[in-house]
Amino acid sequence: MQRDIFLIGASQTKFGELWGKSLRDLAEEAVGKAIADASCLPTAIDAVIVANMLAETANNQAHLGAMVSSLLPHRPPALRVEAACASGSVAVHTACALLESGRAQTILVLGLEKMTDIPGETIACALMGAADAEEDQPSGLTFPGIFGLIANRYMHEHYLTRDELNLVSATHHLNAAENPYAHFQNPIDPEDVEKSPIVADPLHVLDCSPVSDGAAACILSTHTASQVRLAASQLAHDTLSITKRPSITSFRATKDAAKKAYAEAGVTTKDISHIEHHDCFSIAAVINLEDLGFAEKGKGIEWYKNSTTHYSLLTTHSLNSSGGLKSCGHPVGATGVKQIIEIGKKLKEEKTQWGLAHNFGGACATCCVTILENTAVSP
Amino acid sequence: MQRDIFLIGASQTKFGELWGKSLRDLAEEAVGKAIADASCLPTAIDAVIVANMLAETANNQAHLGAMVSSLLPHRPPALRVEAACASGSVAVHTACALLESGRAQTILVLGLEKMTDIPGETIACALMGAADAEEDQPSGLTFPGIFGLIANRYMHEHYLTRDELNLVSATHHLNAAENPYAHFQNPIDPEDVEKSPIVADPLHVLDCSPVSDGAAACILSTHTASQVRLAASQLAHDTLSITKRPSITSFRATKDAAKKAYAEAGVTTKDISHIEHHDCFSIAAVINLEDLGFAEKGKGIEWYKNSTTHYSLLTTHSLNSSGGLKSCGHPVGATGVKQIIEIGKKLKEEKTQWGLAHNFGGACATCCVTILENTAVSP
Repeated sequence: MQRDIFLIGASQTKFGELWGKSLRDLAEEAVGKAIADASCLPTAIDAVIVANMLAETANNQAHLGAMVSSLLPHRPPALRVEAACASGSVAVHTACALLESGRAQTILVLGLEKMTDIPGETIACALMGAADAEEDQPSGLTFPGIFGLIANRYMHEHYLTRDELNLVSATHHLNAAENPYAHFQNPIDPEDVEKSPIVADPLHVLDCSPVSDGAAACILSTHTASQVRLAASQLAHDTLSITKRPSITSFRATKDAAKKAYAEAGVTTKDISHIEHHDCFSIAAVINLEDLGFAEKGKGIEWYKNSTTHYSLLTTHSLNSSGGLKSCGHPVGATGVKQIIEIGKKLKEEKTQWGLAHNFGGACATCCVTILENTAVSP
Repeated sequence: MQRDIFLIGASQTKFGELWGKSLRDLAEEAVGKAIADASCLPTAIDAVIVANMLAETANNQAHLGAMVSSLLPHRPPALRVEAACASGSVAVHTACALLESGRAQTILVLGLEKMTDIPGETIACALMGAADAEEDQPSGLTFPGIFGLIANRYMHEHYLTRDELNLVSATHHLNAAENPYAHFQNPIDPEDVEKSPIVADPLHVLDCSPVSDGAAACILSTHTASQVRLAASQLAHDTLSITKRPSITSFRATKDAAKKAYAEAGVTTKDISHIEHHDCFSIAAVINLEDLGFAEKGKGIEWYKNSTTHYSLLTTHSLNSSGGLKSCGHPVGATGVKQIIEIGKKLKEEKTQWGLAHNFGGACATCCVTILENTAVSP
């Protein structure tokens, strides 16, 4: 970071099927609560970045920068950023650039998505816009299908069993039980996962993150300090289509973004106490922990096998404490922002120093890794 | 600008109904030509920003940052920016922040849109995503309808006649005749405008910019100098819905963005030699020239009445020399980028110092004003 950027306010709405709320209702709720949390005047916000993927399809509403700017009395400069399911963290990345440039001193980043107003099959097709329209879509694949292929290949290469994979969603559901904003607060047993309806072999419904509505907001500032600062925000990419990659059981964009982020923050995996990673499907959770450097190849599942509580291997640490995408829910544009504010919250609650948010789009064609530091904790 | 940002490469594809080319084809062509124009290595590009509004609807392709990043051998960080029809200039604005922050030294901005692959009525509905889904869309309005209301009101307030309004599109068609990339290169007579089919009273087909395919790209750098630098990039907003505004015959966002841009560049309207303004409908051209400060209220049409050539009032000056949105075409995400590269080209060709690009989204709910300087010209 070229300047110290602090997380001075955060909020989220309930994630779930929010039939009674419009896109604007969700925006107003999250923006209002974030400003209240920051204890700043609305006019202190000198730019707005909105993260959203699907509103043009699902809500016939593009131009969300202007929409959200108009919620504030002074209509600050605003724009929308889209990077499929990584839109939230990429919006924060863009906010960092605006803050570092000096064009803004205090920025509101709002991630939001309202996905349940249109049929599930329409949303599934629209989500395939995150994959390659020329290479992947003509085959009839949807994302459960893509991650089903990935899961099959991973199980073949690394002898991961169905019993082991069940542990991922069960752990995330247990975490979400403590999160009042989560889409699903019901604990499930590991065997419930494989008893649920099959979606794309070997993935069952309970291996998949849901279609959710929700919003999350954060206020970032170079002008006002707080306990939590952004220590790194790094982006990397891979091909949209998985057919163009040397391997589908490891995500190169995660490795590249993580490497750059650890360097920017000056930390290693050993320093990280809290992780929110992008578990769009259970198999992704296993791969993410390996690509981020928290497990050797083929050993990502150990994090879930060894957890005696809803937390992980490490004593004061958390892994998808929000419930992750699986159980907190996955309103696409909101997810990356929610991950970052969850890490900020855990750092303060547990008086730990470092946390990491890992957010990707498509089959990890975009990955953004954000590292946060609690400056009130001495190294 | 916090740093000197130079325009070191530019390109555009033909604008028009490009049935034989895919979204990726257009991206590849524009990116390749821009890199060739900049005479740089592809690997010199350390970030990519893609401007696009409608690809998710029209091409089932979101996630364009990752798509374009993958066209380059080193897959640099990339994201998509959307601000309706202002996406192109807002992407350049975002690029300026990334360059000023030091996160990148050389950025590719690619504006692209492929609109003609789906039915016109579907595109018209999708474009209404730039207006307010809760306030404007339920009335059945489309953008020709919105600008028809604006034209009627303007004609009532300022005694603008149909004969006068005809001059706008006739002038823009004459300009486009010299632009090999333009969608329409055919000159038209002023009376052809009112003889063309009515779309939304008083606007006829020839008052309206077309639905076009096309791409435009520019390479901006703080690392490599060139003759043309970006002197200002400023954003402002108004409500999405025109029903919430005190007046519909003047656009507050244009006035606010222009005021900030003139201040940032340290110029007045008298210094500007070239203007590319957002003539999505003929009436917008008249209003734009007033809101930008080039004409008194009610007098914007004088620029078109007094032109004895395809240029305007002023001797060495140009007004929508590309043909504007009306005749060069309006592939939404590409337009703002095309305006900026057109200004860069005119500054070099005519050895003039200052030019301005004015790009808006919706009914000017977002406006971005960019000012460019030819540094090879002494004041």
